[in-house]
Amino acid sequence: MRFVTAKDEMGVFVGLVCESGEQVLPLSRVEERSVGTHVLPETMVDCIEMGEEFLLKVNEINRYIKENALEYLYVPITSLTILAPIPRPTKNIFCVGKNYEEHAIEMGSKEDIPEHVMVFTKAPTTVVGPNEAVLNHSNITSQLDYEGELAVVIGKKGKGIPREKALDYVFGYTIINDITARDLQSRHKQFFIGKSLDTTCPMGPWIVHTSEVKNPNNLEIKTFVNGELRQNSNTKHFIFPIEEVISVLSQGMTLEPGDVIATGTPAGVGKGFKPPRFLKAGDEIKIEVEQIGFLVNRIES
Amino acid sequence: MRFVTAKDEMGVFVGLVCESGEQVLPLSRVEERSVGTHVLPETMVDCIEMGEEFLLKVNEINRYIKENALEYLYVPITSLTILAPIPRPTKNIFCVGKNYEEHAIEMGSKEDIPEHVMVFTKAPTTVVGPNEAVLNHSNITSQLDYEGELAVVIGKKGKGIPREKALDYVFGYTIINDITARDLQSRHKQFFIGKSLDTTCPMGPWIVHTSEVKNPNNLEIKTFVNGELRQNSNTKHFIFPIEEVISVLSQGMTLEPGDVIATGTPAGVGKGFKPPRFLKAGDEIKIEVEQIGFLVNRIES
Repeated sequence: MRFVTAKDEMGVFVGLVCESGEQVLPLSRVEERSVGTHVLPETMVDCIEMGEEFLLKVNEINRYIKENALEYLYVPITSLTILAPIPRPTKNIFCVGKNYEEHAIEMGSKEDIPEHVMVFTKAPTTVVGPNEAVLNHSNITSQLDYEGELAVVIGKKGKGIPREKALDYVFGYTIINDITARDLQSRHKQFFIGKSLDTTCPMGPWIVHTSEVKNPNNLEIKTFVNGELRQNSNTKHFIFPIEEVISVLSQGMTLEPGDVIATGTPAGVGKGFKPPRFLKAGDEIKIEVEQIGFLVNRIES
Repeated sequence: MRFVTAKDEMGVFVGLVCESGEQVLPLSRVEERSVGTHVLPETMVDCIEMGEEFLLKVNEINRYIKENALEYLYVPITSLTILAPIPRPTKNIFCVGKNYEEHAIEMGSKEDIPEHVMVFTKAPTTVVGPNEAVLNHSNITSQLDYEGELAVVIGKKGKGIPREKALDYVFGYTIINDITARDLQSRHKQFFIGKSLDTTCPMGPWIVHTSEVKNPNNLEIKTFVNGELRQNSNTKHFIFPIEEVISVLSQGMTLEPGDVIATGTPAGVGKGFKPPRFLKAGDEIKIEVEQIGFLVNRIES
């Protein structure tokens, strides 16, 4: 199952995406008309917080629709504006730094390969959806860079989560472009400022439920800029697999439903080229993650 | 004016603290019984978002109560549980790192004095109120440390805020204890993990409105551990005064009402002693900031 947050003239809703990816079922809107209940909330975070009950209800609705030939309740995805699946996270996005060896090396040297999970954050005000503009912020940075990443969405509250139970706490997966102002990132030492400019966290296009992802630590990940392949790796090259990231983060800090963890970017960022190849207005960035989908955004001035 | 978030058997509310500090007016509860309107929201962030209208309404209620001898509507502060003024911020708390020269030096050497504002964050799950327990997290850290700080609460949305207008964007001031696990802070490089253990952001006791703070860049700040004076400085020693912090943060990132910025801690943290003096269960930390008040918390296992 894949879930989108979408918008039409009636407002914002959580939708179930059909198998072809071409149709979306507006869940809370069709719930009463199909199974006669109204328990589904309006936002993705509220849906995730419902836990198992949310998935049971979605299955019930979907089954009812098939059995009663109500497929007309689906709407074409092209008629909708697809937003980030979690347009406004309730806290900063967690981001793992330098989680692929080759990327750590391109950012410095072998000495930059971390021995322990490194985490910084991006403000919730950075989030934009698929196809939404990323501002180039040319008045404050001349080194805007892309970072294609697999992102984890937490499904239930947990603290002190052991590695072997960590994936039980995952609701699903999406894609994040961790756009970074390299000059600000290095000038201000701690990464936060260079990582938190408005519109620098494209997220989407949807959340793929964990049940449909065989092994999140073995997914092809590619980033294209204007069609040119720049990043080409696989999450099997994570220094710290997802289980370890979740376990380390949760040792003393409670994780909550709807928390988003960007798992780090592979080699091939603009700063890694000699000379560096930073983003400019008009550039189109496309990130593809196996089993998840793709996320496209354009840089605007 | 000073505003608290408080709790009694009827629930959580925003209160106006009287001059003596001994009585609290539950604003939204007395609004209809006094001035006959009901526009005041229930949470501090929602009140702050109202802007000028919030202050006008508070003044109207307060004047009505005085003129009509309704002082019995105030309740003794001792009958209430005082929570953090913003118990659950809508994003991570912004924290300025190394904003006092002597503290930067005690953490390393003169080379640690930053040339540019350094910002990291604490997760919203860290926040606790006055007198609430701070867990010692002894299973994951043996280097728990205190950091007394003046905190700024943003009053209105802004981006690209110039220094000379920055204080217009402040709603008020409170106190934060930026409790830090030093071993995690250094092990994980980026500060986030060592700064985000549950209960490590005591905040309070209230927000003093900006109109009552003459110069936030000139306030005595003291931290006591078990009555012993450990930090003793003045915000006039900020490397980056509040105007600059707000201006730098907002250059590419929108600040929003209710955002909390901890302005950094002066010299005298536990790690600065030789040998270091870290916190242990039973320790009581009291932070006093001139014109704001004091914040007391105890370490528990």
